[in-house]
Amino acid sequence: MSGSDLYKQAGVNIDAGNQAVALMKPAVRATFTANVLADVGSFGGLYALTNLPAEPVLVASTDGVGTKVKLAAQLGQWRGIGHDIVNHCVNDILVQNARPLFFLDYIASSKLDPQQVAEVVIGVAEACQAAGCALLGGETAEMPGVYVEGAFDLAGTVVGLVNRAELLPVPDAMQPGDRLVGLPSSGPHTNGYSLIRRVIEGRDLAMPIEGELTLGEALLQPHRCYRAEVDRLQTAGVPLRGMAHITGGGFIDNLPRILPDGLAAQVETGSWELPPLFAQLVGWSGVGHEEAYRVWNMGVGMVLVIPEAALDEVLDTLPEAMVIGRLAPRAAGGAGVELV
Amino acid sequence: MSGSDLYKQAGVNIDAGNQAVALMKPAVRATFTANVLADVGSFGGLYALTNLPAEPVLVASTDGVGTKVKLAAQLGQWRGIGHDIVNHCVNDILVQNARPLFFLDYIASSKLDPQQVAEVVIGVAEACQAAGCALLGGETAEMPGVYVEGAFDLAGTVVGLVNRAELLPVPDAMQPGDRLVGLPSSGPHTNGYSLIRRVIEGRDLAMPIEGELTLGEALLQPHRCYRAEVDRLQTAGVPLRGMAHITGGGFIDNLPRILPDGLAAQVETGSWELPPLFAQLVGWSGVGHEEAYRVWNMGVGMVLVIPEAALDEVLDTLPEAMVIGRLAPRAAGGAGVELV
Repeated sequence: MSGSDLYKQAGVNIDAGNQAVALMKPAVRATFTANVLADVGSFGGLYALTNLPAEPVLVASTDGVGTKVKLAAQLGQWRGIGHDIVNHCVNDILVQNARPLFFLDYIASSKLDPQQVAEVVIGVAEACQAAGCALLGGETAEMPGVYVEGAFDLAGTVVGLVNRAELLPVPDAMQPGDRLVGLPSSGPHTNGYSLIRRVIEGRDLAMPIEGELTLGEALLQPHRCYRAEVDRLQTAGVPLRGMAHITGGGFIDNLPRILPDGLAAQVETGSWELPPLFAQLVGWSGVGHEEAYRVWNMGVGMVLVIPEAALDEVLDTLPEAMVIGRLAPRAAGGAGVELV
Repeated sequence: MSGSDLYKQAGVNIDAGNQAVALMKPAVRATFTANVLADVGSFGGLYALTNLPAEPVLVASTDGVGTKVKLAAQLGQWRGIGHDIVNHCVNDILVQNARPLFFLDYIASSKLDPQQVAEVVIGVAEACQAAGCALLGGETAEMPGVYVEGAFDLAGTVVGLVNRAELLPVPDAMQPGDRLVGLPSSGPHTNGYSLIRRVIEGRDLAMPIEGELTLGEALLQPHRCYRAEVDRLQTAGVPLRGMAHITGGGFIDNLPRILPDGLAAQVETGSWELPPLFAQLVGWSGVGHEEAYRVWNMGVGMVLVIPEAALDEVLDTLPEAMVIGRLAPRAAGGAGVELV
């Protein structure tokens, strides 16, 4: 343990903890900005708030990566799962227009392997650095009898900042005719893995599925972070009215969360090419059309609501953006999402 | 799922999630202050920062409750473990003189029972309310194949605030002769439970151990929160020079974290009465004298460093406070803690 408590390792035996800390320390340090008061010996991580907006609002989210950890453990791919947890959390506060300040992670297992812990934390640190947020702390716990042998869990918490006047979504500003713009996902991200693990049981994870990617590789592609894309749109002056992060519950559950009662999202599911992985998962699982859009992101990880007049600007700024639908009036008691 | 996302239940099946949310919602709501922007439909929890000090510093800590969860699950006592996680985290930032703003929790299991989840979260909410912090969000995850059947894990993150000029500890202000004042713990809190579970194996948890408490009850006493005590001392004008939260690593590892290189903490282990539970645990386990003060808090959950001149004021303000030692010069390379 270092006195400065770079990273607590309370639950791990001391030797394993020291090994893991030595391996991951440079990556964690690389995430530190001038706001991190790292040289103060501390029990908690310290983050100095500077350049605050007029009405600062902290936005915080805790999440896990679900049973994708099982697949990662099975394939011995640890680093990507670190990207997953950070990017998932960062996107969750990004949709409220917050930018991340710092992140903390929690890793637990029945028995921790220092190399594996370090790989996960290095992945967490890499994603934090890419998202412009400090990895302020974390906890690793060795809990025999709680976790299945060889399995581990990973959770994280992000804290971000936004000016109250700039909070998103703005349901009152949304109008019929507003366009829905999708940003491509990199795969199922971190959702629907309990079903995925069931449908791939007994299948060859080395089979080619998408371009150069095998099934196993495609399923472990890290959750994509959309901070850079949203930054570019806002720098270009695009007036975003709302963003929905397509996670557990898919289009069906996540889009209505940002809409006013009187509007529904008409999603034209034929307007983008379904990535082969999702086509295969739908085929293997036999889930119905609507159900598929509830379980998986189907190739779209983030949906933006923009005024129609801003569409050209969005497509110029983000060539990969896909126009996937529009807002339309919703009758009382009607569904918030229509797949058309 | 509620649209306002009071509490995410992404990993739980929808019915169980709805049941749990309905049960815990009033307790969670009761923690909300005017700073919580709860009525904004949101993916993350929103906390408006107001009344900021001159140089605001956020202090954050993530922690788990370790294998105490096994004992809680075994005895079917869920609520106290919720108190444990909050109080542990709040104390961890209190020692830096931060006061908690908000808390987020993470609960995972192979299969979640809505009643049990609600009990844990109600415990979390009760402790948050007592500590003056909002339960801003959380995540519950059902992860078959990751957790042992019947076991669950609980982690949490607290975010607090302090003015930079008031950060503790202040090692430069510490002097030989400064007094160490201990505040009583309520039991082992959340540390040393892997060893505890080993030494109580086969013993009768219903045996009386401390006053009215059985062994099982004494072991599940929730981690005590020291916020109220520290508030009272500071209101009385006591100049605290540092505080050490006695958690994993006990006196031996935690006291040196707040001391300057030139000073050691002389802890007079005979100066307070060892609670019967700890005497029994030491006897059963056969751990050595120093080792016991590394594994357990031995009846002292928080240690304050104060100038000798403030001692009467401290004892007047907190009659339960125990004078347990003093600071003394430390030779180069000497140990940070001496048990005398």
